Amino acid sequence: MIELYDLAGRDPLLRFSPYCWRIRLALAHKGLEAATIPWRFHEKAKLPGAPHNQKVPVIVDGDNVVADSAAIAAYLESRYENGPSLFGGENAEAHANFIAAWADHVLMPALAPLVAPYVLPVLHPMDQIYFRSTREARLGESLDELGARSGLLLEAALATLAPVGATLGRQAFLGGAEPSYADYIVFSCLQWARCVGSPSLIARDDGLARWQDEMLNLFDGLAGNAPVAETDGRQRAAKA
Amino acid sequence: MIELYDLAGRDPLLRFSPYCWRIRLALAHKGLEAATIPWRFHEKAKLPGAPHNQKVPVIVDGDNVVADSAAIAAYLESRYENGPSLFGGENAEAHANFIAAWADHVLMPALAPLVAPYVLPVLHPMDQIYFRSTREARLGESLDELGARSGLLLEAALATLAPVGATLGRQAFLGGAEPSYADYIVFSCLQWARCVGSPSLIARDDGLARWQDEMLNLFDGLAGNAPVAETDGRQRAAKA
Repeated sequence: MIELYDLAGRDPLLRFSPYCWRIRLALAHKGLEAATIPWRFHEKAKLPGAPHNQKVPVIVDGDNVVADSAAIAAYLESRYENGPSLFGGENAEAHANFIAAWADHVLMPALAPLVAPYVLPVLHPMDQIYFRSTREARLGESLDELGARSGLLLEAALATLAPVGATLGRQAFLGGAEPSYADYIVFSCLQWARCVGSPSLIARDDGLARWQDEMLNLFDGLAGNAPVAETDGRQRAAKA
Repeated sequence: MIELYDLAGRDPLLRFSPYCWRIRLALAHKGLEAATIPWRFHEKAKLPGAPHNQKVPVIVDGDNVVADSAAIAAYLESRYENGPSLFGGENAEAHANFIAAWADHVLMPALAPLVAPYVLPVLHPMDQIYFRSTREARLGESLDELGARSGLLLEAALATLAPVGATLGRQAFLGGAEPSYADYIVFSCLQWARCVGSPSLIARDDGLARWQDEMLNLFDGLAGNAPVAETDGRQRAAKA
């Protein structure tokens, strides 16, 4: 069985990494069983392929160790070519690469300042100092300051989702009639926010809301039944 | 032969509409000969299908009149299914629909305030009052004010192109090894800017520059050999 090293919170059952979520969904899409192995930021030495591999997701499939979500998706598509395609052909994969680049360069930078303050308290205590220092350096602002202006950050994140909502107003999934890896890329970013309890990114757009419900229900509720942070994010924000 | 009603400037040979350019490229991609018919904003009554059809592109293909670039692309793909595919399959078309939505909701709104001041002087005199009033209402600012801050608007437009540059740093075209309609969508927006002489959106990104050169050379230089505004855009901006 394939092993997936998956970022976990203090609660080992709480999984929220957007790059791991898209791989969990990709594995299910391919019909592959996988065991997820909880991993924390301070366990870098435990990662297969360390010290070269420093981040999750990493999968171990027999003798193959593959890191990086895009590389894992490409690996699964070619290694398990007889399973349902993640992309739907070469042109579809090429177009999905734009959606991946948009998620990396636009969606994640819009979500990160909103979501990061909600990630901090769910992390293992030994991860919190690392997370705070790396994210505050990257975001150029303290997580406390960011948490205090969630409202404005939410508006910016919602605006960023406009092309997703427009597309999903016209078709069932980004992949068309059925979900593709493009859906997993975008959904995994929203699942990240959802699992740590940050303000909802969904309510205002019908196409997006309908789609998120379908995504949460895929594969017997793989994403929808996953644990979410117990503390209410808004309460945490109010206390901050 | 298919007829394409195409927005023209005061100079009937100057064509710059982004929604018409993507269709000119789509027709060439399909190997279809087409005659472009210069049309101006004040000639609404002359459009086939008027008054229902109010905007170009409109194509006339025998008994079929099709308006709206997305509808025309879908029409060409199904009517000429034996020609080279514009998308490369259903999943690829679904993913391209996101790229189209991104172009409509993000790229064009980022380009419009930069490019519109450069469109105004190339228009037929009878179009200028219409264009100024509709665009100033849409953009919420006078074209003269926008023209005076081209520099900042250029920075915003370049930032918007980040996911395009990232994708084209890793693959030849948005469509993969060969161009697809997704390339024509994005390129046509840049061709709009280029043809009216607005500040260049290209120089700073290698992947984007390489790709634009290839796009300009496609189909015997269809886009690259097309007339561009004679007046230098920067001079116009400086005079404004």
